Amino acid sequence: MANNAKYDQKFTKNVIGTTGENASPRTKEIFASFFTHLHDFIREIELKPEEWMAAVHWVNRIGQISTPARNEAHRISDITGIESLITEIANHVASETGDTPTSSAILGPFWSPNAPWRKLGDSIIDSPAPGAHVTYMHGIIRDMVTKKPISNVTFDIWQASTNGKYDFQDPENQKDNNLRGKFKTDENGEYRLICLRPTAYSLPTDGPSFELLNLLDRHPMRPAHIHLMITHPDYKDVITQIYPNDDPWLATDTVFAVKDDLVVDFKPYKGEHGETKELELNLILAPKGEKLANPDPVSH
Amino acid sequence: MANNAKYDQKFTKNVIGTTGENASPRTKEIFASFFTHLHDFIREIELKPEEWMAAVHWVNRIGQISTPARNEAHRISDITGIESLITEIANHVASETGDTPTSSAILGPFWSPNAPWRKLGDSIIDSPAPGAHVTYMHGIIRDMVTKKPISNVTFDIWQASTNGKYDFQDPENQKDNNLRGKFKTDENGEYRLICLRPTAYSLPTDGPSFELLNLLDRHPMRPAHIHLMITHPDYKDVITQIYPNDDPWLATDTVFAVKDDLVVDFKPYKGEHGETKELELNLILAPKGEKLANPDPVSH
Repeated sequence: MANNAKYDQKFTKNVIGTTGENASPRTKEIFASFFTHLHDFIREIELKPEEWMAAVHWVNRIGQISTPARNEAHRISDITGIESLITEIANHVASETGDTPTSSAILGPFWSPNAPWRKLGDSIIDSPAPGAHVTYMHGIIRDMVTKKPISNVTFDIWQASTNGKYDFQDPENQKDNNLRGKFKTDENGEYRLICLRPTAYSLPTDGPSFELLNLLDRHPMRPAHIHLMITHPDYKDVITQIYPNDDPWLATDTVFAVKDDLVVDFKPYKGEHGETKELELNLILAPKGEKLANPDPVSH
Repeated sequence: MANNAKYDQKFTKNVIGTTGENASPRTKEIFASFFTHLHDFIREIELKPEEWMAAVHWVNRIGQISTPARNEAHRISDITGIESLITEIANHVASETGDTPTSSAILGPFWSPNAPWRKLGDSIIDSPAPGAHVTYMHGIIRDMVTKKPISNVTFDIWQASTNGKYDFQDPENQKDNNLRGKFKTDENGEYRLICLRPTAYSLPTDGPSFELLNLLDRHPMRPAHIHLMITHPDYKDVITQIYPNDDPWLATDTVFAVKDDLVVDFKPYKGEHGETKELELNLILAPKGEKLANPDPVSH
């Protein structure tokens, strides 16, 4: 940067140079890049002492508001685009065929390793959800290369209730593992279950993440979404989210996790258990070892 | 960066683009640069999900270990070179004359607004300091342009005791405001006081800052130093530190705050109050509005 030239050109090199010989090669690689970008950023915008000190106090507040049920550093990663980028990088493998698996999207802070196994056709709704559109969700999971259905896939689903809260954020209204469940696809590669049409919600409007959104004059809304983690020993994991196509926040998702092939259509339906919506969602998994296409999150 | 090209080239622009129109111009400037460098860093080293998640937990621990007597985010700023850079930028003004004021160095987390006023010649040592070299410190503070002594300058000094701790880190051994004091220069521009020859010390060997130093295979040592804040209404503030010239940590100061003109010589001395060392330190202040030279921290 041109405006760096008046500052000590050896400073960043000196900082990087204090890294010891016992640091791992990957640590050295990460921090050489980190210090270079961090210092270039500071010199480029000539960060002022009072701006830096405001940031120091802000960073301290991140951990101070975090609890086992609230990971503020994870949320900051999301509203700054970090987790979405990490997800893109982790799922990027160049392809020669043009085939692509279902796109990935961020995991977010609300997945639980303790979701219960449920039977195909069961509901994940264990607690009342005022104003809910109960939804019959089903689909077939196929192999990207052979196009054949895959049986015995683990279909792990989690979602917020109609008040925008997940079970462990909302113990007064929701039982443990409400709106969570793991299913296995049958011999036809099919899953089916009952869930909620999801509801858009706001990130918490307190704490350092909301302070940052306010500073940037940004809204705290996530479009309505359902989280999915699709796994099978022979296939590459797909961790993703799906979004109703009429959601007003799709273009400005505060965590930048929307991709075009993840936007879906909830159709009117009359089911035997009060279902008023139907969602058919078919998914594609890439066999392990297969070269995956780069899913361009904008143009497809 | 060449290896960025395979990733979505619109992503960072999209993140920056969500900044609202009511954000201030300075906020827009800072975060456009911040998001660009942050995302370039992540793409450049292709940060992995497990590396990112380790960083998320590490960031949360920063605030969790911070207390009114321990500002961990400030310390992380120091060991990553941020505060030293901020200090360089804040004190940089191009000069046409070649004259320079005394160099600045980082404030650090231990300055107190409550240091007591003391009389010229008084000691700042209020509590016993085992193994101390009591020092007679004195000097003249001059105007950078006229070279004349300046009376009525506030000379604010603070230092750690021989155990490497400041008063509020060490209430069992040190009275409040031990090794702190504010003095005014006399009509000859002179200050004089009794203090300790400073002792090198380690940053705390717990918490996220030490975890980072370990990861980088770096030591946690600061060279011995005395902090100074020199102020006068007609002159630009000088916040700085001075270092004994025989300290072994000068070249690898863990907070990157050493500059050549701040390295000083403590000489043998026999004073009336047990002083065994003498330090003569003359200082130069730049009149406000004067263009200051760029103090090159390496070559002078």
